[in-house]
Amino acid sequence: MKKLDVPYKIYLDEKDIPNSWYNVRADMKNKPAPLIHPGTLQPMKFEELQPVFCDELIKQELNDTERYIAIPDEVLDFYKMYRPSPLTHAVFLEQLLDTPAHIFYKFEGNNTSGSHKLNSAIAQAYYAKKQGLKGVTTETGAGQWGTALSMACSYFKLDCKVFMVRVSYEQKPFRREVMKTYGATVTPSPSMETEAGRKINAEHPGTTGSLGCAISEAVECAVTHEGYRYELGSVLNQVLLHQSIIGLETKAACEKYGLKPDIIVGCAGGGSNLGGLISPFMGEKLRGEADYRIIAVEPASCPSFTRGKYVYDFCDTGKVCPMAKMYTLGHDFIPSANHAGGLRYHGMSPILSQLYHDGYMEAVSVEQTRVFDAAVQFARVEGILPAPESSHAIRVGIDEALKCKETGEAKTIIIGLTGTGYFDLKAYEQYNDGTMTDYIPTDEDLAKGFAKIPDVKVNF
Amino acid sequence: MKKLDVPYKIYLDEKDIPNSWYNVRADMKNKPAPLIHPGTLQPMKFEELQPVFCDELIKQELNDTERYIAIPDEVLDFYKMYRPSPLTHAVFLEQLLDTPAHIFYKFEGNNTSGSHKLNSAIAQAYYAKKQGLKGVTTETGAGQWGTALSMACSYFKLDCKVFMVRVSYEQKPFRREVMKTYGATVTPSPSMETEAGRKINAEHPGTTGSLGCAISEAVECAVTHEGYRYELGSVLNQVLLHQSIIGLETKAACEKYGLKPDIIVGCAGGGSNLGGLISPFMGEKLRGEADYRIIAVEPASCPSFTRGKYVYDFCDTGKVCPMAKMYTLGHDFIPSANHAGGLRYHGMSPILSQLYHDGYMEAVSVEQTRVFDAAVQFARVEGILPAPESSHAIRVGIDEALKCKETGEAKTIIIGLTGTGYFDLKAYEQYNDGTMTDYIPTDEDLAKGFAKIPDVKVNF
Repeated sequence: MKKLDVPYKIYLDEKDIPNSWYNVRADMKNKPAPLIHPGTLQPMKFEELQPVFCDELIKQELNDTERYIAIPDEVLDFYKMYRPSPLTHAVFLEQLLDTPAHIFYKFEGNNTSGSHKLNSAIAQAYYAKKQGLKGVTTETGAGQWGTALSMACSYFKLDCKVFMVRVSYEQKPFRREVMKTYGATVTPSPSMETEAGRKINAEHPGTTGSLGCAISEAVECAVTHEGYRYELGSVLNQVLLHQSIIGLETKAACEKYGLKPDIIVGCAGGGSNLGGLISPFMGEKLRGEADYRIIAVEPASCPSFTRGKYVYDFCDTGKVCPMAKMYTLGHDFIPSANHAGGLRYHGMSPILSQLYHDGYMEAVSVEQTRVFDAAVQFARVEGILPAPESSHAIRVGIDEALKCKETGEAKTIIIGLTGTGYFDLKAYEQYNDGTMTDYIPTDEDLAKGFAKIPDVKVNF
Repeated sequence: MKKLDVPYKIYLDEKDIPNSWYNVRADMKNKPAPLIHPGTLQPMKFEELQPVFCDELIKQELNDTERYIAIPDEVLDFYKMYRPSPLTHAVFLEQLLDTPAHIFYKFEGNNTSGSHKLNSAIAQAYYAKKQGLKGVTTETGAGQWGTALSMACSYFKLDCKVFMVRVSYEQKPFRREVMKTYGATVTPSPSMETEAGRKINAEHPGTTGSLGCAISEAVECAVTHEGYRYELGSVLNQVLLHQSIIGLETKAACEKYGLKPDIIVGCAGGGSNLGGLISPFMGEKLRGEADYRIIAVEPASCPSFTRGKYVYDFCDTGKVCPMAKMYTLGHDFIPSANHAGGLRYHGMSPILSQLYHDGYMEAVSVEQTRVFDAAVQFARVEGILPAPESSHAIRVGIDEALKCKETGEAKTIIIGLTGTGYFDLKAYEQYNDGTMTDYIPTDEDLAKGFAKIPDVKVNF
């Protein structure tokens, strides 16, 4: 087993923070399908998106040709507060597993929001500020995105209205409190403040909410309030663009130390982290310059890649948003209540959906008890308490490292470690107490969600 | 205002992690008073301390002549997981305050234990392992030390029994759960498992405990269990020795960029962080090579430096420990229940007590609402949610920076940022809701604690 000559934690210099985001769409032969208008079934135009999103972000959303987009100086300044993030050599995990594999993780949890979400939040807040807006609205489930956007808005002195899925609002008072500390307003969703919320409450009395509902409320709140726009932390092309900073730094760190990843593993809910982490590697793969195994890991309880359909569907339960072509479980799908953490969204980034459809990446689903086995194993030797989301990637990273142990191969595995689990200790408690359970939807369960997907034929 | 040519975050290279701890006692003309036996009133001998502490740690405790003590390789390996910690230039805070001062903070929160406590925990766990022990016992209040020792013991596969002050055990279930995730046993104190605990429970039915009680229980548990020793996260000389890594890195970073601190500010509960941060700077001051203003910041509700007595007192409520000469509020003193976070200990490190007594440092006390004003101000611009403990230092750092604004001086201020506040959101909630209150003990309140301090005359 060759010992690698790399430091335990690879920190790039501040001056090595990339000054452009990488737009993987520029290198895709089959572009991701455009967002469409549910009425006309035609691609959404700039003007149609203007009531919802900031102008500059719409331009980024629609731009599938420009390979690099400059990061504004104000955003770069903020990035310097917590970036470059470390690419860490998991030597203690390797020792524990007794594997010849070289395991690395790109750790995005070293900021108060606790996750990679801040990378896009600060960019989105910046463009809102630049446009002279008063504030922004958004939704949050597990709370990582809401926390990140609250921090970003606090920095740029923008108002931030967060609709928080009710079950999280009640179970995670501390998440809520961090957002309030950063000056955000946090409303449990479904609320009585929007038409979408009142309708969902009337149809499903006592519902504890879902991301799809909260999105409907946040979008409605933005379009009905002067000087507000809606911002979203995943799924969209613009989000993957901003998150490419993760992959660009990872690639730069690899190049600095001559590392050649064989396998890149990331968790996938809406695709924000995975899409960002793999972007520049995927670019090489698309251009035929290099090859990598790229693995998306999703929860068995919300398996959009592995068991979803690749069709046009609504992005939200209230159907107030445009439609996207993506791997989806149906806009009505709500994962079982026993599912911990994020990765609960019914759909998947259109970019990643197209890449997966075209065979550029793999996807696996994992049960949550196995995920927490990996989380605790990792925490005890690597000194980081991983978020449940991130632990999906750790699980499969460990599985691949154990395969290397069987075959004797010294593969280099990179894991996307999206964040920390400080606000997920209820789930750890269940795991520690032995009361955590798994849930895998049956085909009948999924059929109910699929039945609600509209049958859309596009002709553009 | 001269712009500094330093990166936002100064990260030393891994190879620049110091390989020795610095023992400030070697440079003190007036050595800190030794621990004494409460019966004989004579300095505790190595053999007398053996039932309680690990052999190697006793040697370090008693060693006041050797200037540098080598850090074992196994401990250095672990340090590489989260060290060097960044020395961060607080440019956004400077902008907010509009001060000519240059503010830096040494951030120790980038590890799962969330604080600097890990620096000593891993050393103490290592020596316990090396001695062939089965496990260790300890107490924890706010939970930082217990979390750190749990992590360290998990790494070295040692059993870890934590006595957690009952009020924290109940109010901080997530702290407890992190420790359990790392495999520790966590018992609320006072418990019925020790004689000390049963006695305290009988005398004070329904008591929610104190650090002093929990120490008594942990020490008793260690001496009555074969193969166990007691470990403590603050106050002791050995702890300040291990924590000197903070100061050594800070000094190296300053030297690398030509920074000359004028003021060094740290929070002080038992003194572990402050003692570590200032050690090498204090060494220069003691040797007459340089001068710095060094400020200890303590809570107004537990003002051992500013209102305590410099005398021999018991280290614990149950009087099972040796006595230490220190600034103390009396071993029976329990801070008001409205006090958030750590810094609740009745005494202060003998090393820092001697240095303060000899005029080498200043001390100020601050009220907690002013501390949280500073915490929120800091969080909103610097992107880190600080622990309540650390926020004491931030408060005074800001106060000093504002004085610079008045005088126009461009002083360089270094703040010890000991950790993160993820487990202290109950306190942030009180602050956000406007229900947080201040408490300053009256002279009569303090007199009760002083009355219990034994009148000790030593003759060595």
